[in-house]
Amino acid sequence: MLSQVPIIDSQSEIPVYRQLYIGLRDGILAGVLRDGERLPPTRELAQLMGLNRATVSAAYALLEEEGLISGQVGRGSFVHYRSGALSQEISFATSRPAEELFPLEEVRALTTEVMRQSATAILQLGSPFGYEPLRQYLMEQATAEGVFDPEEDDLLITSGCQQALDLIHKALMEPGETAVVEEPVYPGLKHAFEGRLSLSGTGIKFVTPSFRNPTGYTMTMAERHQLAQGRERLLVEIDIYSRLRYAGEPLPAVRGLGCQHRCLLLRSFSKIAFPGLRVGWLIGPRPLVAKLAAAKQWTDLHSDQLSQAILLEFARTGGLDRHLARVLTAGRERLRVTLETLAAVLPPGSLFTRPEGGMNLWVTLPEGCDAAALLEKARRAGVSYLPGRYFGLSSGFNASLRLSFAGLSPGRIAEGLRRLEPLFSEEARIAARMKEPAPEMAMV
Amino acid sequence: MLSQVPIIDSQSEIPVYRQLYIGLRDGILAGVLRDGERLPPTRELAQLMGLNRATVSAAYALLEEEGLISGQVGRGSFVHYRSGALSQEISFATSRPAEELFPLEEVRALTTEVMRQSATAILQLGSPFGYEPLRQYLMEQATAEGVFDPEEDDLLITSGCQQALDLIHKALMEPGETAVVEEPVYPGLKHAFEGRLSLSGTGIKFVTPSFRNPTGYTMTMAERHQLAQGRERLLVEIDIYSRLRYAGEPLPAVRGLGCQHRCLLLRSFSKIAFPGLRVGWLIGPRPLVAKLAAAKQWTDLHSDQLSQAILLEFARTGGLDRHLARVLTAGRERLRVTLETLAAVLPPGSLFTRPEGGMNLWVTLPEGCDAAALLEKARRAGVSYLPGRYFGLSSGFNASLRLSFAGLSPGRIAEGLRRLEPLFSEEARIAARMKEPAPEMAMV
Repeated sequence: MLSQVPIIDSQSEIPVYRQLYIGLRDGILAGVLRDGERLPPTRELAQLMGLNRATVSAAYALLEEEGLISGQVGRGSFVHYRSGALSQEISFATSRPAEELFPLEEVRALTTEVMRQSATAILQLGSPFGYEPLRQYLMEQATAEGVFDPEEDDLLITSGCQQALDLIHKALMEPGETAVVEEPVYPGLKHAFEGRLSLSGTGIKFVTPSFRNPTGYTMTMAERHQLAQGRERLLVEIDIYSRLRYAGEPLPAVRGLGCQHRCLLLRSFSKIAFPGLRVGWLIGPRPLVAKLAAAKQWTDLHSDQLSQAILLEFARTGGLDRHLARVLTAGRERLRVTLETLAAVLPPGSLFTRPEGGMNLWVTLPEGCDAAALLEKARRAGVSYLPGRYFGLSSGFNASLRLSFAGLSPGRIAEGLRRLEPLFSEEARIAARMKEPAPEMAMV
Repeated sequence: MLSQVPIIDSQSEIPVYRQLYIGLRDGILAGVLRDGERLPPTRELAQLMGLNRATVSAAYALLEEEGLISGQVGRGSFVHYRSGALSQEISFATSRPAEELFPLEEVRALTTEVMRQSATAILQLGSPFGYEPLRQYLMEQATAEGVFDPEEDDLLITSGCQQALDLIHKALMEPGETAVVEEPVYPGLKHAFEGRLSLSGTGIKFVTPSFRNPTGYTMTMAERHQLAQGRERLLVEIDIYSRLRYAGEPLPAVRGLGCQHRCLLLRSFSKIAFPGLRVGWLIGPRPLVAKLAAAKQWTDLHSDQLSQAILLEFARTGGLDRHLARVLTAGRERLRVTLETLAAVLPPGSLFTRPEGGMNLWVTLPEGCDAAALLEKARRAGVSYLPGRYFGLSSGFNASLRLSFAGLSPGRIAEGLRRLEPLFSEEARIAARMKEPAPEMAMV
């Protein structure tokens, strides 16, 4: 099984065998390719990717040299990478909530209740627009907030925010158009648009005004107004973290600042409640939502109805607000420990962002450091994160990395960062040495 | 809101305003555009579809003439179509199970149980491949059946079979390639491939060997062997109805007949259990499944986990088999009543298929009949179905219609078909008259 196929850039200056090697190596180190997983035979992978078989063999040879895979005659190559028991690994790699805060008893009771009341409707085929009681509730809430106009707007339930990105890619992009994003960019956006992205333009623009993934950056009020008055054909406001504010004053959604006719607002229960129940929603002008709903129908007919019903009751009964209060208290402490420990352990010349909420922050090690190469050592020390290069449009951000802190207890955060300290310091020393000018050759 | 935007074919000989009119009319008659729904202002729809405003106005004028929409000054146009209370309508339009057979108490108990045992894992972020316990169960079952090779194959959970089609379109189509289908074709396949379909070729071929939607046709053993030995690069076997066999001997999946290396098998719980819980799966060679899993990740991260856990327990505890036994008894009777009543009510010269299972059958009225035009009258009589033209690659099947019988009680089936009898007879009489040669003009 190959759970992730690397993406090869035929325009790149990096040789293809090396791109393939890097892609597979990163997959192994990030744990996407699991220990014991079998790689396809070189012939098969070559065919699958449209590559020369020798290219694949060269990439496999490099991986074998590094001990990341091992070939077994007649059986193929297997990932061979034990980073200590994975359950003990301290992973800063995933932007996800703290599961120990889930109010399990409450969700169990709500689940029993919605199945008691509405089982038939939940189990029968539904509408592409979503479970109607949830839609009605979300539209009322959004109207009260000033981001929904019942005369002009509509609301579509999606299977999380990721699906909204996919539907926009399918239904709203014009031929030859690229979508405008901010760099560093969330990899899920990069992949949903299959490389049809750029850093400027007046087509569809994606922004995350609050606690942006990966930097945690939050736009000021002035920036929000400026965005609302921009010239882009369509603004897509990704707003999945804003309720996770641990400090400072809440700021309004950009959609409420006078750009409703050309703005889609994307929200989700995944970050504020439970990502395992796949429920998000989008709000926008009716003609656009109609196009997205048509695309949704032919993508998966409609989203799962039981989860929609449970999350509706969770929100309507105040459970979500009570849960968020606990999440904010915990998140505040987690963020504080992360920032304090980073200040203590990072080598001189490092930078890191200081978000006031969300789940992620962004560390940039001194120039010349390679966060992707360091990840291998980090995993041997039982820690993981996402290297910065995953967040670049084409390349760059080699010295950066994303730390997702919200899912880890304060103790684990401190322990994990302390384990990284010696690795970061050594990498910084090596990088500094490389920067010293080498003795020049006499020009003759 | 416009819940479905008509598709305009710029190559067609039918004028665009008329295509738009037909698309909107069909949407209204099929109930996709709901009574009271507001149509976008002509200017807005023109912009949205890239059409001239006058074109849209002409289409609206035709709809107004027929009384299907009504304009209100300053407020726009509204769908104005009451087909009798919709809840009383007898709808043969949707291929879905009988909700009165859902074992609600059993599903409630299973839901409570999985939430008691596995709530944390279910609510937390999961894997693109699906909920691991369900994957393991399905792989074991498929291995025992002979359609899964643990050494060569892998399994991916999808949000229903429709999503598998979308993922195949995204991840496995080569540039410029068309997918091969059988006509009449399920509209969800047509839309998922955005017109990239043809009736012959050696690329990716989609087949539904058992109780095909819409005809109910089932391939013989000889046809299955022939298919398994075909020359197509990839065979996609849609196998979502085969367990709904009311008569005759079960036939094996084509994937088990020696074409495993180039065959994807698509299955789902939607038709055999509950379509509101969106869980399907696909089985195929590892390299292909890996590509599909990568596409799945960037489509919606992963499928909902609570539904996966519930359906696993439903299958594992024997609940699914017990449920299917009841469904088969009921379906057998529903099919029998459908066939007997059709034989009694259809005008001479009509044809209809006689499936041995599934949810659908296909009626073809005498030549010259227009099943789409008849639908309007049918809905006034409180009955609906899907006109044949929805199932053509470009056009055709005007005299045909699909009847989905599985979700209706025998009494409703008989009543619905009897209501159609006079409409069909009149349409057949008119069509016969049109065929009589008109007196020829003298050529001078």
